Amino acid sequence: MQNTTITPAAQVAQWLTQLEAALASADLAAVLSLFDTECYWRDLVAFTWNIKTLESQAAIQEMLTEQLVHVQPSHWQVTGDAKVTPDGTEGWFTFETALGRGKGHVRLRAGKAWTLLTTLSELKGYEEKKGPTRPQGTQHGAFRDRKTWLEQRQQEEAALGYGQQPYVVIIGGGQGGIGLAARLKRLEVPTLIIEKNRRPGDSWRKRYKSLCLHDPVWYDHLPYIPFPDHWPVFSPKDKMGDWLEMYTKVMELNYWHSTECQRAYYDEANGEWVVTVNRAGETVVLRPKQLVLATGMSGIPTIPQIPGAETFAGDLHHSSQHPGGAAYGGKRCVVLGSNNSAHDICADLWEHGAEATMIQRSSTMVAKSETLMDLELSELYSEKAIQAGMTTEQADLIGATTPYAIMHTRNMPVCQQIQERDDDLYARLRDVGFLLDFGDDNSGLGMKYLRRGSGYYIDVGASDLLANGQIKLRSGVTIAEIKPHSVVLSDGSELPADLIVYATGYGSMNGWAARLISQEVADRVGKCWGLGSATTKDPGPWEGELRNMWKPTQQPALWFHGGNLAQSRFYSQFLALQLKARLEGLPTPVYGLAKVYHTQ
Amino acid sequence: MQNTTITPAAQVAQWLTQLEAALASADLAAVLSLFDTECYWRDLVAFTWNIKTLESQAAIQEMLTEQLVHVQPSHWQVTGDAKVTPDGTEGWFTFETALGRGKGHVRLRAGKAWTLLTTLSELKGYEEKKGPTRPQGTQHGAFRDRKTWLEQRQQEEAALGYGQQPYVVIIGGGQGGIGLAARLKRLEVPTLIIEKNRRPGDSWRKRYKSLCLHDPVWYDHLPYIPFPDHWPVFSPKDKMGDWLEMYTKVMELNYWHSTECQRAYYDEANGEWVVTVNRAGETVVLRPKQLVLATGMSGIPTIPQIPGAETFAGDLHHSSQHPGGAAYGGKRCVVLGSNNSAHDICADLWEHGAEATMIQRSSTMVAKSETLMDLELSELYSEKAIQAGMTTEQADLIGATTPYAIMHTRNMPVCQQIQERDDDLYARLRDVGFLLDFGDDNSGLGMKYLRRGSGYYIDVGASDLLANGQIKLRSGVTIAEIKPHSVVLSDGSELPADLIVYATGYGSMNGWAARLISQEVADRVGKCWGLGSATTKDPGPWEGELRNMWKPTQQPALWFHGGNLAQSRFYSQFLALQLKARLEGLPTPVYGLAKVYHTQ
Repeated sequence: MQNTTITPAAQVAQWLTQLEAALASADLAAVLSLFDTECYWRDLVAFTWNIKTLESQAAIQEMLTEQLVHVQPSHWQVTGDAKVTPDGTEGWFTFETALGRGKGHVRLRAGKAWTLLTTLSELKGYEEKKGPTRPQGTQHGAFRDRKTWLEQRQQEEAALGYGQQPYVVIIGGGQGGIGLAARLKRLEVPTLIIEKNRRPGDSWRKRYKSLCLHDPVWYDHLPYIPFPDHWPVFSPKDKMGDWLEMYTKVMELNYWHSTECQRAYYDEANGEWVVTVNRAGETVVLRPKQLVLATGMSGIPTIPQIPGAETFAGDLHHSSQHPGGAAYGGKRCVVLGSNNSAHDICADLWEHGAEATMIQRSSTMVAKSETLMDLELSELYSEKAIQAGMTTEQADLIGATTPYAIMHTRNMPVCQQIQERDDDLYARLRDVGFLLDFGDDNSGLGMKYLRRGSGYYIDVGASDLLANGQIKLRSGVTIAEIKPHSVVLSDGSELPADLIVYATGYGSMNGWAARLISQEVADRVGKCWGLGSATTKDPGPWEGELRNMWKPTQQPALWFHGGNLAQSRFYSQFLALQLKARLEGLPTPVYGLAKVYHTQ
Repeated sequence: MQNTTITPAAQVAQWLTQLEAALASADLAAVLSLFDTECYWRDLVAFTWNIKTLESQAAIQEMLTEQLVHVQPSHWQVTGDAKVTPDGTEGWFTFETALGRGKGHVRLRAGKAWTLLTTLSELKGYEEKKGPTRPQGTQHGAFRDRKTWLEQRQQEEAALGYGQQPYVVIIGGGQGGIGLAARLKRLEVPTLIIEKNRRPGDSWRKRYKSLCLHDPVWYDHLPYIPFPDHWPVFSPKDKMGDWLEMYTKVMELNYWHSTECQRAYYDEANGEWVVTVNRAGETVVLRPKQLVLATGMSGIPTIPQIPGAETFAGDLHHSSQHPGGAAYGGKRCVVLGSNNSAHDICADLWEHGAEATMIQRSSTMVAKSETLMDLELSELYSEKAIQAGMTTEQADLIGATTPYAIMHTRNMPVCQQIQERDDDLYARLRDVGFLLDFGDDNSGLGMKYLRRGSGYYIDVGASDLLANGQIKLRSGVTIAEIKPHSVVLSDGSELPADLIVYATGYGSMNGWAARLISQEVADRVGKCWGLGSATTKDPGPWEGELRNMWKPTQQPALWFHGGNLAQSRFYSQFLALQLKARLEGLPTPVYGLAKVYHTQ
């Protein structure tokens, strides 16, 4: 029976009061009594100095036994409206720790916590200077030897990496590195981005020319400066490039363009990295305390070793190097792979009058962009959401409230709806032999992205071309051999070819650690990304969070940052706070540093 | 007695209902009966296709007699909360016209309108594409000969001014021209900015190095992309320059840098301007239908003709050319003038170890920056205002509700407060002979700005230096003669001088029309800025609005745009709508085109 004598907010407040008392007296039995038998406590840096989900009362007990003495949580207060849901009651709250302030969310089932989220928002005494605490910009009064903003900025740029060492070096100046650097800038953490391209945004500009973001604008904002409200739903790559370039400038990020990292090693004696870079021809040795790899969550291109490749007379390159179809009108093009890039490239080739054949080695999830936007994103990221009062920050937090362990159960019905809505498209694809799947457990695209970062196509037009036969399809085969003017497939058939594109994906991000640091460090850190779901390309054991992302790794002072724009925006907050705490010498006892089960 | 049976909102709604009925039946007597004997109807483009305040029932009657048949107003609806004030009741509303939608505000006194504001927000069928109507960015599907965003942008840039003529040419690519061009971009009006400097923002960057904005950040946002919340209160000039440069890029403005307008004339036969420009060495002839001068509201530097100036052995330049004090350490510097630039330059010279003497010819209003922010701006533009829910758009509209005819009466008590609060500073300034005033009618700085655009210093530190004698002062005199190494003042005394700065202000903006078009056109258009208040440097007769700004002038298709960042932001909306309506061939019957009483 619904309890009608107490509001949802009061119910959450009551639970928080009990939690606060139990935590304050370190009465772990009392704490655990507030949790359901099935329970998840997801903590983003507030309790664990880690990104961690505790998936049982026992796990919670173990965490608190270690951490409570450091964390000293207090001031738990309901914020906003709580609400009644089919599960029970849920609501938002704020809290404090010894060092910081946080935001959280709880879902109660029959008065007990089923899911709990705790996130660190800011460190006391190290808050971002914004709004009422923003800088003056000029110092009123008259002062001899006053330095202007420009002079200070120029001095900083001239000194950083030479006379003064950055505390953080971020390798990779794409959207991930730029957004993280902006957070660190606001936290006053001396940071330097290293980027091999000439201009911020070139990592977008240099891709095939028809590329647009596959996620819609509401999902893609960078921190602090949202896109204006006329910004297109799907940013064209060059426009996105310009935005990143301007963002880097006006956020005053220290950005070394045309700079490649040659090698890096951790100098344990001094507790710092030694990073040798080539800055437009000049060798510079940097000594940051912290090193962040933001080289793209996709890591290093996977290049299949195919017999005869070296004899091919035409063009052969990985999708990341593909310039677009302009040069291939009338040519016979073979694209190996069937995920996003493979589809985009095939459609672009077709648009340029090429004859494109997709070689589909294994099954793929396809979902129409409009359908995904409508069924998966629109509640949190859409005009509809904005009109309902949703902010990007709130949407991000709501997204974070669902523990990964139960996320697939929430996605399955949505995936079912997708299949029903676009039934005709799927039928037509099956008719031409396209191998479809919707995830091992039919949980859909979002889970595939989290588990393996691959295995899907967000349909923006290529599926129609495949279904119509305008893009040719060979499925259930791979390329067994390459000849000068053709490819031989694994079923023995042969296709003439002037161009071969390996749309074969990327390795784990720790491949970058292998290349830039050492295989030993890469192996020590292990595979990045994936949940340990024991589904295709995401071997167990279960991890509960994405491996190695935005959190401490087995290699001290080495961090991995990446993901789509929304993840980069949200998790950069927690990575930045972890780095800031270390810069300021605050105690950051890491709880539950993940073991490594897979090296790649 | 307060009517307690009807809410303020209902009172405003009732008045609007009566107005709507009276207007719908063209019953002007009924309309006028809704206005107080003392009444002001300020219209921004909605009724008059002009910027116009009607200052009596008779004036309202005359306007409606001409315009009502075109305007066809309807759908008057209260929005938000109305409120009771010492004057009566005031509230906000929306309305429609035959061609557009508008927002307005009314102040009722005993049920009759004392002040009415009507503003045009958008044109029906030509609304800005934003939010739910924003572009997709990519066209889903597959299309041969697809043009990417970059290709379209490059084609537009290559064609504009050559194969395709812009509808509007804006001369001057500072903050004014850039903000207006952004509005025109969102309204899809083909526009080209001509700017003599190399980079957007250079008009800030090239000024003396200590320059910061004198208005605080909340007042200074450009349209569409507000400054992020860490932006300094007073933007340093180079940081502002960078913001303008990024804004120009991401708003996709067509901006010809390194381009000077050489001459322009209006080709009446073809109804278009012929504008000859030098684009980085190449002569290009542009033929826009509309020409906007956005060359700075301050017009052309005023250079006094002083006997012997040609014999001066040191540096002599106008404040607009002053590079800052770095080169003048230990030098004897004479600054002619006592307004903002004169103070800033003297303080900067002192900071660089120069000996600066200010020559104050006539009295000046001084107000501390903090005091102004607190007493004049904070209700609308401050962190306090933001926390109270104020938006920039709302603040701008509130500012527009007060007719100029009564504005000084509202400013006088504030000016009195300023004098009381900073009494000690003023006493110290008087002690060293500084000539102070607070406007002819003690209405303060804001009115001086509107009336003459000069005559004041917003104190950010120089006043202390003057009061302490660190900047020397000679007041009540001017420079009578210049010798090779000195200046002779009008009292016969002589000062040694290595540098002379003419901080002597600027002429009216129509000086630019004289220089670029012809003296005839400049005289036809007449003086820009000022209200006709019959106070110092603002001769009557009373105009009721700023002369020639953002509205039709006596020269067809010639427009003046300028002002501080807040004015440029707000009035660019109305100028852009006037230009858009003309592009689309909508009827724009201008009511009450102002007569010209002064040529400069």
